[in-house]
Amino acid sequence: MAPITPTPEWVKKLKPSGPQGSELLAQERAKSKVDTEGLSRFLFTQTGLDRKRKILNILKSEKVFDKSQNYFASRVDRFETALARAKKLRQIAVHHNWTQEDKIVANDLISEPGPYGLHESMFLITLRDQGSPEQHELFLKKAQAYEYIGCYAQTELGHGSNVRGLETTATWNPEDKTFIIHSPTLTASKWWIGSLGRTANHAVVMAQLVIGGKPYGPHPFMVQIRDLKTHKPLDNIHVGDLGPKAGYNTMDNGFLLFNKVKVPHVSMLARFSRVDPETSRYSRPANPSLIYGTLTWVRSTIVMQAGGVLARGVTIATRYAAVRRQFQDRDAQDQRSETQVLNYTTVQIRLLTLLATTFALHFTGRGMMQLYEASQKKMAGDAGKVGDAKRGAGPEETHSGSDLLADLHATSCGLKSLASSTAVDGLEVCRRACGGHGYSSFAGIASWYLDYLPTATWEGDNYMLTQQVARYLLKSARSVLKGVEPTNDTTHILKNFLTKSDMGAAFDILGKDEDLVEAFAWRSAFLTFEALKHRDEQKKSWNSLLVDFYRLSRAHSQYMVVKNFYEALNASDVTSSLDPETLTLMHKLFRLYALHTLESEASEFYTSSAVTVRQIMLARTSAVMKLLEEIRPHAVRLVDAWDFPDWQLDSSLGRHDGKVYEDMFYRASELNPLNAITVDPYPNSDVLFKEDKSRDFKSKL
Amino acid sequence: MAPITPTPEWVKKLKPSGPQGSELLAQERAKSKVDTEGLSRFLFTQTGLDRKRKILNILKSEKVFDKSQNYFASRVDRFETALARAKKLRQIAVHHNWTQEDKIVANDLISEPGPYGLHESMFLITLRDQGSPEQHELFLKKAQAYEYIGCYAQTELGHGSNVRGLETTATWNPEDKTFIIHSPTLTASKWWIGSLGRTANHAVVMAQLVIGGKPYGPHPFMVQIRDLKTHKPLDNIHVGDLGPKAGYNTMDNGFLLFNKVKVPHVSMLARFSRVDPETSRYSRPANPSLIYGTLTWVRSTIVMQAGGVLARGVTIATRYAAVRRQFQDRDAQDQRSETQVLNYTTVQIRLLTLLATTFALHFTGRGMMQLYEASQKKMAGDAGKVGDAKRGAGPEETHSGSDLLADLHATSCGLKSLASSTAVDGLEVCRRACGGHGYSSFAGIASWYLDYLPTATWEGDNYMLTQQVARYLLKSARSVLKGVEPTNDTTHILKNFLTKSDMGAAFDILGKDEDLVEAFAWRSAFLTFEALKHRDEQKKSWNSLLVDFYRLSRAHSQYMVVKNFYEALNASDVTSSLDPETLTLMHKLFRLYALHTLESEASEFYTSSAVTVRQIMLARTSAVMKLLEEIRPHAVRLVDAWDFPDWQLDSSLGRHDGKVYEDMFYRASELNPLNAITVDPYPNSDVLFKEDKSRDFKSKL
Repeated sequence: MAPITPTPEWVKKLKPSGPQGSELLAQERAKSKVDTEGLSRFLFTQTGLDRKRKILNILKSEKVFDKSQNYFASRVDRFETALARAKKLRQIAVHHNWTQEDKIVANDLISEPGPYGLHESMFLITLRDQGSPEQHELFLKKAQAYEYIGCYAQTELGHGSNVRGLETTATWNPEDKTFIIHSPTLTASKWWIGSLGRTANHAVVMAQLVIGGKPYGPHPFMVQIRDLKTHKPLDNIHVGDLGPKAGYNTMDNGFLLFNKVKVPHVSMLARFSRVDPETSRYSRPANPSLIYGTLTWVRSTIVMQAGGVLARGVTIATRYAAVRRQFQDRDAQDQRSETQVLNYTTVQIRLLTLLATTFALHFTGRGMMQLYEASQKKMAGDAGKVGDAKRGAGPEETHSGSDLLADLHATSCGLKSLASSTAVDGLEVCRRACGGHGYSSFAGIASWYLDYLPTATWEGDNYMLTQQVARYLLKSARSVLKGVEPTNDTTHILKNFLTKSDMGAAFDILGKDEDLVEAFAWRSAFLTFEALKHRDEQKKSWNSLLVDFYRLSRAHSQYMVVKNFYEALNASDVTSSLDPETLTLMHKLFRLYALHTLESEASEFYTSSAVTVRQIMLARTSAVMKLLEEIRPHAVRLVDAWDFPDWQLDSSLGRHDGKVYEDMFYRASELNPLNAITVDPYPNSDVLFKEDKSRDFKSKL
Repeated sequence: MAPITPTPEWVKKLKPSGPQGSELLAQERAKSKVDTEGLSRFLFTQTGLDRKRKILNILKSEKVFDKSQNYFASRVDRFETALARAKKLRQIAVHHNWTQEDKIVANDLISEPGPYGLHESMFLITLRDQGSPEQHELFLKKAQAYEYIGCYAQTELGHGSNVRGLETTATWNPEDKTFIIHSPTLTASKWWIGSLGRTANHAVVMAQLVIGGKPYGPHPFMVQIRDLKTHKPLDNIHVGDLGPKAGYNTMDNGFLLFNKVKVPHVSMLARFSRVDPETSRYSRPANPSLIYGTLTWVRSTIVMQAGGVLARGVTIATRYAAVRRQFQDRDAQDQRSETQVLNYTTVQIRLLTLLATTFALHFTGRGMMQLYEASQKKMAGDAGKVGDAKRGAGPEETHSGSDLLADLHATSCGLKSLASSTAVDGLEVCRRACGGHGYSSFAGIASWYLDYLPTATWEGDNYMLTQQVARYLLKSARSVLKGVEPTNDTTHILKNFLTKSDMGAAFDILGKDEDLVEAFAWRSAFLTFEALKHRDEQKKSWNSLLVDFYRLSRAHSQYMVVKNFYEALNASDVTSSLDPETLTLMHKLFRLYALHTLESEASEFYTSSAVTVRQIMLARTSAVMKLLEEIRPHAVRLVDAWDFPDWQLDSSLGRHDGKVYEDMFYRASELNPLNAITVDPYPNSDVLFKEDKSRDFKSKL
């Protein structure tokens, strides 16, 4: 496209000073022998890499996916473009017969939430999983064909995580065999519903079922909300977009209110629960755990993605830190030439530890997904054995160690909380590590951070969720104390702690990787039994222990991350996938992650006697600093292995070729629409813009 | 203004469910006896409070300051409105003969950076402080009259904090007695310059002075950049806005390149350095510390403001946490009614500790300003005694304990880093503590956070600055080791540590407030001597110690915050200002801040033997939790004392009257421009918007 403002010829001739960014990155890549491609294959498989290239080429060839105006456009413009992209993407997906996996990759590359987002996920999933065969015929087919475009309307203005508190009602009317959907208060307004604001013509509405004046709890109802032709809201429905947000502004999160809207009997999704239209009798869900299963899957997905989410920021910040030079090393001989920022230890302690974290989270996500799939298989095998699942969601008590679902639930809660907090906070650390330019939209970090931000809150707030982990650990500890034999890793580490706690621990955290893992297990077990003492012996209130539970969940989840990272590097397939040099480096990244985390949480490790003060001192002043030095030369190649195409990152600072300043300048000078306007700057003048006298100052007053 | 979309009558009748927000906040205020007005006076003085009311009324009466579209407007629209506001504000200031203080209050209330921002600060200050009487006559007067509108052009695309690295040159041409201002490279482009992008017609340009081929370092030049009538850039000047940022989008941060632009001899600001136009001889600055003085003042201002910056977020989140109810307390008898979120200890540990932090920072800011003013007086008295100042900025060495400037410099660096990091990170904690609604723009936290964000980077990056503190502490420690008698607080605590370190410390941190202060001093001194050992005995490289220096600076700055808070509550004027009940509560807030900070940094306190493991355990599990419980009933009244008008906060969640949900709904339903658009949602249709066939989908492809 033509530049918004032309760049003068004399400016076009200018180059950045000193060694060029492209030269600096080339040097970085030359001095390390890390097998970037091999590591990429190890992380993503060759099939995954090939798929990405193929889809990237398709997207880049379509004008509608051009990203050059993304950072400049207003909310309305961005939404308009996002809708055009969603339409095109759907057409492409049909044309190329894309799989679910292909679609995920395409959305990752486009990297913005789109207006069909909730239609394609929660709407279709809920219709599929909770609809009867009749409803599949009536609703699902049309939804799959995009005649019905939908959303999943659960959260309300006054009610977030607590589904039981929802106020929207669905009252069964036996006279004409309908449900009356109603919003009795303002706080009953559905709120935050993705794809609802402007796009959807249908909604799956979670509403309190009422039969004969008696409440039966929240149930899903399929409700048409807009006319299929005019797309205007139907009568007695008030619906709209809920306004701008910190991020996610390409998505139309919406609100929705009902004024006694009648829907037919078939609207209540009836695979598990139903109301008999003749007798008005309600029949209970066959297996409530299947409903919770969706949430567990969503949380597992968040865990799986967290490493990649963070890696975008780390890639951008690391490449820029290799290009950017500032000040001299104080001890350097040559006090004229400036040092690459990546050489400063205050930059390394932030970026290289986060680089290690990206891999730690990646392997943890893989482990989480394997656990999820194993539990799905087990559940399929156990179909009908409902007891276990129900017990897992029940009140505080002991549970049998074999309760795979409870373990899965707790693991997904704890890791979702830790992984998303780590990724979101880490992205902001990356942004700040870029100095002033990190604040520019062209850095490509702020918008990514702001779009990811709600992940710390949705699908279970990161503080709230930790109660689930604590509850599970307390149950496990009670079972171990009763002498039940360990059946999974959690009960195993608790038992181990009990057995050895008298002798105390003597972990060689600086010498042996496996001892590092053990030290994390020890601390988690120590905190578990501490919490149990407070609750069961000292009878402290649940509320007074929430802060301890938060720490406990964090400690246990960090143990799981360390363990997953360790196991991934010691699996049998590793030596065939990675060359020895790269593998050695990965082990160093493991140690960096583990020791840095241990040192950051030092006081818990002391208190539990897992380590000595002397060990922590050595970890901090010697081991971590040495690892930073050893990993530093490989930083650029390591981020390269994450294999983000420039098109995906859309970042001046993170460019693979290092042409950072050229790109910053090009975007500011040629693409920025604000530069098309010449203002009248004087306080006493009547106009605001020189060119456009209609925009007079007085009209604003 | 008329609603963008009308709300149906049946919706207008709806109210939020349960106890209304207004009732809940009224209950909160009724159950505490904190003297809100008295505390406000103690914090801001009656004069300050009166001034705010007076100015608020003026601003609210002007349509241009109406905030209702702020969260919706595009960048270009926001900039246009910001310019209109800046013009109007200037007219009002002239009309009412406002003082500098009045203008600051007005800008605080408007709460958005404006296009005159850098004109009114750095441009005028630099002309005043660095211009000769002749230049005052030529430039300053016109600038004060807004005929010249300017900016301060220092930072470059490739050069941030390091002024010596600037590339722009000003070459003296004795032939025609001019300077040639030139940008030799792309990285020489001025970058980030506030008010430059669209508004300024002049710039103070920092450029490397070159005389006869020899460089003389960076100097300021007054340069016209745009035509005074057309406002178009002058020949051989390329200037523009640098594009969107994470925040600060009402400001036109700009770029600027020169192609051998000639300016007359008088352009070089000549109060301190000058080039003799006849002999081409350069004369040196008389007192370089005066130049550093401006930066110290700016940093001191950041410290002074940090408490109030954070308090906005704490006010919003605390009020909303008193209105919002979610889930039941697990041990509660009544499992139907939901609990105010503020009752959960996981919310208290975040919000009440931050509430304590707002006061800690407020008193620290006051102390910082007093120190600054004392040093200004001293300097005025010492005029001519240049030695001290120069030594302060020199290389590593010992310095005399009486070096007030060095102390001021280090204190302003350390506190700027700690206070702005604390405020910015705390704001994000507040936003997340609001749950899902915290993500909405209407919460009023995200935009405030994003506008404040660069404070962590500018005026010295928060990591970089800590080297200054460490350098000062190392010097002080060397001086104490040599036996020089302490002359200020820093050398005093170092001496004290040396004297007692053999015996060890036995601070009663749980019993005595003054011992808490001592424990922070002890840890700071311990880390100082540790760092000194690494540097002077073990001869470790400066770079390898940067991470330790960062910790040291943080520790020392936390000590200063604790000390300032303690001293403010034990000053002689306190008992006449605060009633005993409120004062007791303030002491509890002091203990909460100190103990929570101590506990968060526990491992350094252990390692230094300032406290025992047992004390930390008690601080965490007992003292802090008890303080939370005792402060909880007063939380709303305490945030009320910060005295933010609703107009300033512009937050649905933070409304003083608690009408949270009504306001969220009103903004979404009636003000949101996206709701004026009806889309065509079907993937195979040709149009994007139903109403406007010209916006067809195909044009996007």
